[in-house]
Amino acid sequence: MDDAPRPTAPRHLEPAELQALDAHWRAANYLAVGQIYLLANPLLAEPLRPEHVKPRLLGHWGTTPGLNLVYTHLNRVIRARALDALCVWGPGHGGPAVLANSWLDGTYSDTYPDVSRDRSGMAKLFRQFSFPGGVPSHVAPETPGSIHEGGELGYSLTHAYGAAFDNPGLVVTCVIGDGEAETGPLAASWHANKFLDPVHDGAVLPVLHLNGYKIANPAVLARLPQDELDALLRGYGHNPIHVTGDDPAAVHDAMAAALDQALDRIADIQRRARSEEVRDRPRWPAIVLRTPKGWTGPHEVDGVPVEGTWRAHQVPLPEVRENPDHLRQLEAWLRSYRPDELFDAAGRPRPEVLAYIPEGARRLGASPHANGGLLLRELPVPPLDRYAVKVERPGTALHEPTRVLGGLLAAVMAATAERRDFRVVGPDETASNRLDALYTATGKAWQAETLDTDEHLARDGRVMEVLSEHLCQGWLEGYLLTGRHGLFASYEAFAHVVDSMVNQHIKWLRTARRLPWRRPIASLNYLLTSHVWRQDHNGFSHQDPGFVDHILDKSPEVVRVYLPPDANTLLSVADHALRSRDYVNVIVAGKQPGFDWLTLDEARAHCARGVGSWAWAGTEDGSREPDVVLACAGDVPTLETLAAAGLLRRHLPELAVRVVNVVDMTRLLPRDAHPHGMPDFEYDAVFTRDRPVIFAYHGYPWLIHRLAYRRAGHQHLHVRGYKEEGTTTTPFDMVVRNDLDRYRLVMDVVDRVPGLAVRAVALRQAMADARTRHHAWIRAHGTDLPEVADWTWPG
Amino acid sequence: MDDAPRPTAPRHLEPAELQALDAHWRAANYLAVGQIYLLANPLLAEPLRPEHVKPRLLGHWGTTPGLNLVYTHLNRVIRARALDALCVWGPGHGGPAVLANSWLDGTYSDTYPDVSRDRSGMAKLFRQFSFPGGVPSHVAPETPGSIHEGGELGYSLTHAYGAAFDNPGLVVTCVIGDGEAETGPLAASWHANKFLDPVHDGAVLPVLHLNGYKIANPAVLARLPQDELDALLRGYGHNPIHVTGDDPAAVHDAMAAALDQALDRIADIQRRARSEEVRDRPRWPAIVLRTPKGWTGPHEVDGVPVEGTWRAHQVPLPEVRENPDHLRQLEAWLRSYRPDELFDAAGRPRPEVLAYIPEGARRLGASPHANGGLLLRELPVPPLDRYAVKVERPGTALHEPTRVLGGLLAAVMAATAERRDFRVVGPDETASNRLDALYTATGKAWQAETLDTDEHLARDGRVMEVLSEHLCQGWLEGYLLTGRHGLFASYEAFAHVVDSMVNQHIKWLRTARRLPWRRPIASLNYLLTSHVWRQDHNGFSHQDPGFVDHILDKSPEVVRVYLPPDANTLLSVADHALRSRDYVNVIVAGKQPGFDWLTLDEARAHCARGVGSWAWAGTEDGSREPDVVLACAGDVPTLETLAAAGLLRRHLPELAVRVVNVVDMTRLLPRDAHPHGMPDFEYDAVFTRDRPVIFAYHGYPWLIHRLAYRRAGHQHLHVRGYKEEGTTTTPFDMVVRNDLDRYRLVMDVVDRVPGLAVRAVALRQAMADARTRHHAWIRAHGTDLPEVADWTWPG
Repeated sequence: MDDAPRPTAPRHLEPAELQALDAHWRAANYLAVGQIYLLANPLLAEPLRPEHVKPRLLGHWGTTPGLNLVYTHLNRVIRARALDALCVWGPGHGGPAVLANSWLDGTYSDTYPDVSRDRSGMAKLFRQFSFPGGVPSHVAPETPGSIHEGGELGYSLTHAYGAAFDNPGLVVTCVIGDGEAETGPLAASWHANKFLDPVHDGAVLPVLHLNGYKIANPAVLARLPQDELDALLRGYGHNPIHVTGDDPAAVHDAMAAALDQALDRIADIQRRARSEEVRDRPRWPAIVLRTPKGWTGPHEVDGVPVEGTWRAHQVPLPEVRENPDHLRQLEAWLRSYRPDELFDAAGRPRPEVLAYIPEGARRLGASPHANGGLLLRELPVPPLDRYAVKVERPGTALHEPTRVLGGLLAAVMAATAERRDFRVVGPDETASNRLDALYTATGKAWQAETLDTDEHLARDGRVMEVLSEHLCQGWLEGYLLTGRHGLFASYEAFAHVVDSMVNQHIKWLRTARRLPWRRPIASLNYLLTSHVWRQDHNGFSHQDPGFVDHILDKSPEVVRVYLPPDANTLLSVADHALRSRDYVNVIVAGKQPGFDWLTLDEARAHCARGVGSWAWAGTEDGSREPDVVLACAGDVPTLETLAAAGLLRRHLPELAVRVVNVVDMTRLLPRDAHPHGMPDFEYDAVFTRDRPVIFAYHGYPWLIHRLAYRRAGHQHLHVRGYKEEGTTTTPFDMVVRNDLDRYRLVMDVVDRVPGLAVRAVALRQAMADARTRHHAWIRAHGTDLPEVADWTWPG
Repeated sequence: MDDAPRPTAPRHLEPAELQALDAHWRAANYLAVGQIYLLANPLLAEPLRPEHVKPRLLGHWGTTPGLNLVYTHLNRVIRARALDALCVWGPGHGGPAVLANSWLDGTYSDTYPDVSRDRSGMAKLFRQFSFPGGVPSHVAPETPGSIHEGGELGYSLTHAYGAAFDNPGLVVTCVIGDGEAETGPLAASWHANKFLDPVHDGAVLPVLHLNGYKIANPAVLARLPQDELDALLRGYGHNPIHVTGDDPAAVHDAMAAALDQALDRIADIQRRARSEEVRDRPRWPAIVLRTPKGWTGPHEVDGVPVEGTWRAHQVPLPEVRENPDHLRQLEAWLRSYRPDELFDAAGRPRPEVLAYIPEGARRLGASPHANGGLLLRELPVPPLDRYAVKVERPGTALHEPTRVLGGLLAAVMAATAERRDFRVVGPDETASNRLDALYTATGKAWQAETLDTDEHLARDGRVMEVLSEHLCQGWLEGYLLTGRHGLFASYEAFAHVVDSMVNQHIKWLRTARRLPWRRPIASLNYLLTSHVWRQDHNGFSHQDPGFVDHILDKSPEVVRVYLPPDANTLLSVADHALRSRDYVNVIVAGKQPGFDWLTLDEARAHCARGVGSWAWAGTEDGSREPDVVLACAGDVPTLETLAAAGLLRRHLPELAVRVVNVVDMTRLLPRDAHPHGMPDFEYDAVFTRDRPVIFAYHGYPWLIHRLAYRRAGHQHLHVRGYKEEGTTTTPFDMVVRNDLDRYRLVMDVVDRVPGLAVRAVALRQAMADARTRHHAWIRAHGTDLPEVADWTWPG
């Protein structure tokens, strides 16, 4: 494929075109300034007075005129080409721009009829902005046409790619601020073009907006010489197109030409790939837009330059109510857009302003892709019994739970082969995580060079592997927000890499759920595997179970955490997660061979309850409360708990032991703290109010206390879990180091159950001896004690 | 400055040089394979038998030969040039390579005398690797010469820059794996050269190691055409030098020439900048090393290719004990390095192998920079009274606490002007965080283009601003690990961006503290400001107080969390943090004007206790236990609590109210859970065992329960805090939305203190009415109620 930008003769805008585009841009700028400043007098029908101005001035002007320019010009090309388009606004703090434009294109009033496209609506638009009870200052779920908040910088481009995957007709423009461009996630996102299939995916058009300054500093990319910046973009696999200037007419002309050139090039790439089967990786266009920060705003305030500097970042005139000079400057600034030419006396935009607004759902504010629930279809999850493992007796046969799940996921992948609305993302570990059955149904997305030794790479693959959790997360978020389904499989420890990203997604979902016009989208599903207890190869740096703690801090209406203890429970949990909506589901499951405990039917029933006692594992006879409850959550703690139960059954058969397994962690919360929370009577029925509970938990032990502190029996709760005693060692040594092993659990029982027979003292000593034996054995042999390695449930 | 790589005639290695370098490399490869596989028979004195092989084979071979090559060649140039050098090994999972080399250069035996440089030591070196009770499989704190674990990928290059800052004589080589290169943090790190001063800083030499594959996939950068990769590196501001091949002799020759060329170029850049005052930003060299993954390992195993593919990533021959073919292949592989030529009969490396090992502290394993505590000097923190605010009466005057801190930091910056061992990092917010007094003492590091409108930029500045928390964190970690001091000031919410990075640093410190040869280093100090309660401009996406929760999950010997409530307490806490060692200190403090509560002396005493009752604020007369404890932590909760105390004092004067402020969060933990934990008797004396405690906390309320659940009075503890009810709104509306406001706190008191007078019911109603009044006022005016906005402590 010819990679040189083709030298199309740049068509200049006709005077009427230029005039209309400039009118729209001025209108958007006027509306943006109005939102930041005005409480009243929206059309400047009378001279501006202090009381027309908001008492607290909050918003970001600096990036706004640039965003308005992009929106204005996107309108033109969407209309001219009948494009199916979406735009991701990286500088999302430029909320006034996107709000102004969606008010102009009518989608704001369609969504919020009280904010009508007239004077009364304009007054509301202005007043509500960054005003208590109004709308946030950023692009947000409340903003029509948005899938990206932009508050935490760095994720615009990966979101844009996520939206473009499997949307072959869609062009996703992505405005990238030069501040955001310094972040790691954004820097990595440029290479996402190695994963974009020109046949089955849409296009992403990056618009790198260099306005030169962040909050207080120059931006790195804005201060590279142009040849170095060009080299960088070419190194990223893009052909750059430059739009530079501060003269509006010249910039309009250059921007129109740049967009035409870029869209021609995109169409050309897609045509060649789709019709001519050209298979080279295309060099996609990218636009570099260099305009002043705070362009068209006050040039100088109080004797220092503002336009074109970092001082234009937020509110260029900060003292309008108190300082008459500032007030005068504000009025002059607003009038510089000539509002009389833009709006009629009733505050309606004049026809010229609206000349290039696209029709209906083509408007950027109305794109169904930005309200993905509109496009969402039920995921075809097949019946689980085809994939479930047979369990004759608990605790005797072993399976790798994630490998069993892989069968189910492969079936979903196969069932969506035509629809292409399901993807699995992960950092280079799909096979390592035993999900390689997926490759029977699809390949790994890859557009770069391939060699004979490569396996499972495919241009149209729907497994996405890249060694960046940020990209995985961002791709999946963009994919889900535009109405598709997916799963992120990750090392448990490194899920923390995306702590802050998932925060933002949870915030988005929490807000979107409260907006009736936003339709539910598919949940973001994490499979955390390669977990803390099985880092035999990697040791301490790979041992961290805290992602669950992080998630459980967040909005309870959104977050769900599951720790299925075996293969069939994993299937049941995954089935539920894949069908759910508007959640973030975290599933922690092992990939190493582990015992099967439950049949599929038992697993379904157990997962539906979320927590339950395993009567076959305990020694209750039903005649009285148990003497002790052994509770567990997670595959390794469940194994140790069952082994401890076996020891107790053998050595203290008169002890009434109840074994409780927790799959759904939020069941432990009170009813009013989480929708899944158990009522107290139910919690008490399972855990008792007064018997010792020895809880073996997968992660940090205090999480269980944080969930259960309000329960009556809390003072009898004793939790074992991971306490940062990690290294490269054997699986059983890991649990011994953290006092989670079967022997320690039996000792805990002896220590906490009152009135035990004298022989319990001997049992306790035997357990302590077993731990000593373990230490000696492992140093000598480097393997686990045979009695541990060969253990099966005594039945 | 001339940026073209100068066409030096490449000097070829003499045959003897080549032979010695190759011998060293083969020795390192042999020792690496030995570590992965052998339990016994280290010198292959007898034919290899299954029992000589470890029962569990754990380690990463794939990257190891490449790391060995780099180490071998660094030895040569260090010795030839008497370089002060450090190397950061990005593919830190290639632990066997770094261990092999430090055993060869003698530093391993210097550090661990039982692992001597002879047969017995070699046997121990092999056995201990990835063996229970031995050493981790990765480069780790246990590894001499290391500052970088490399388990969580992405941070090598930012660590390297951190090490190079203010070390003008140091050359930091940084090996970057092609997997790691896909991560966001690494992708962003390339631009760190815009912040490296060729006069006052050392040099960073990136070695991008393209071995082609990650765990299961090709690496993106390895599959770019060379011109595209070159463009990328030039776009990053580097001049690439390529070393490509699989023939050892040719690669040795090319690698030697590349290192000579790069180091000549570095010396030239530094000379020009330092002697000739050339001020252009230099284009630093970078080496692209392209060799096969698992080079020199088994070419094919069980009929499939291994060398040069992802199958060489970990253990190429997985079944050596069971499969005689694998055993034979392993023996042939080991013997291919011709160990008899490399080691004498006593297992000592032969002189030729050691010919290029540098002397003494020049050895990479012995660099004092890698054991930074050796170089650490006390930070000159001036007396606080010069910076403290005068407090005549509590709760009447306002200061911006971080601005007060800025004065102290500026003094530290000035006092280290010559020493240059203190830096402040942050994402573009030093001035926004009110720390701009720093600019009286230094500038912001910046090597790129400057314009007339820029302010405070300086090539030698020691404030580092870049819009990447990852870079800030990595720079500071590298700086601290090499024996210097610093502070990271961040938005509270976006500290989560580095959750996973700080995990790794805490793990490093926790392990390093247990190694007697590692000397204490300066703590990593966070100042989290722009916190959850004051996001007037930005709203929900910027509201997250959970970093503290994340930190408190980690090793208690390392983590410390402080919430100073006013300016003088912030000074006192910062003073302590800056002087401390081996901790991660998190300080959460406001930047908005807040009331001064304590004089400096009171602040010191209060911070030393970490928690204390403020007698002046309560109404206890000392004759009996209080009726209620109002506890608070954080500036905004302290304000609301004091306001609530004022209301109670006025309306229910007979109520005995104790006001307790918590500065050091870990004081709430039990004594055995954290070194700062209060003994129960002390906790009970402050909080009582049976009186209601209304705790107003800065962050997620359940954190307080998680810390205090074991206390006797826990069931009487009622916590208010942030519960994800955020948006763009006024400060007081934020606390009302989250039920943390003064009125709600008074209502909580009325609800929880038994036996109150009837008039308490009226007070409760008045409080509820005040909340209603707030809602009406704010919607009408967009500002807070005058009674709130104008409030001062009634005294």
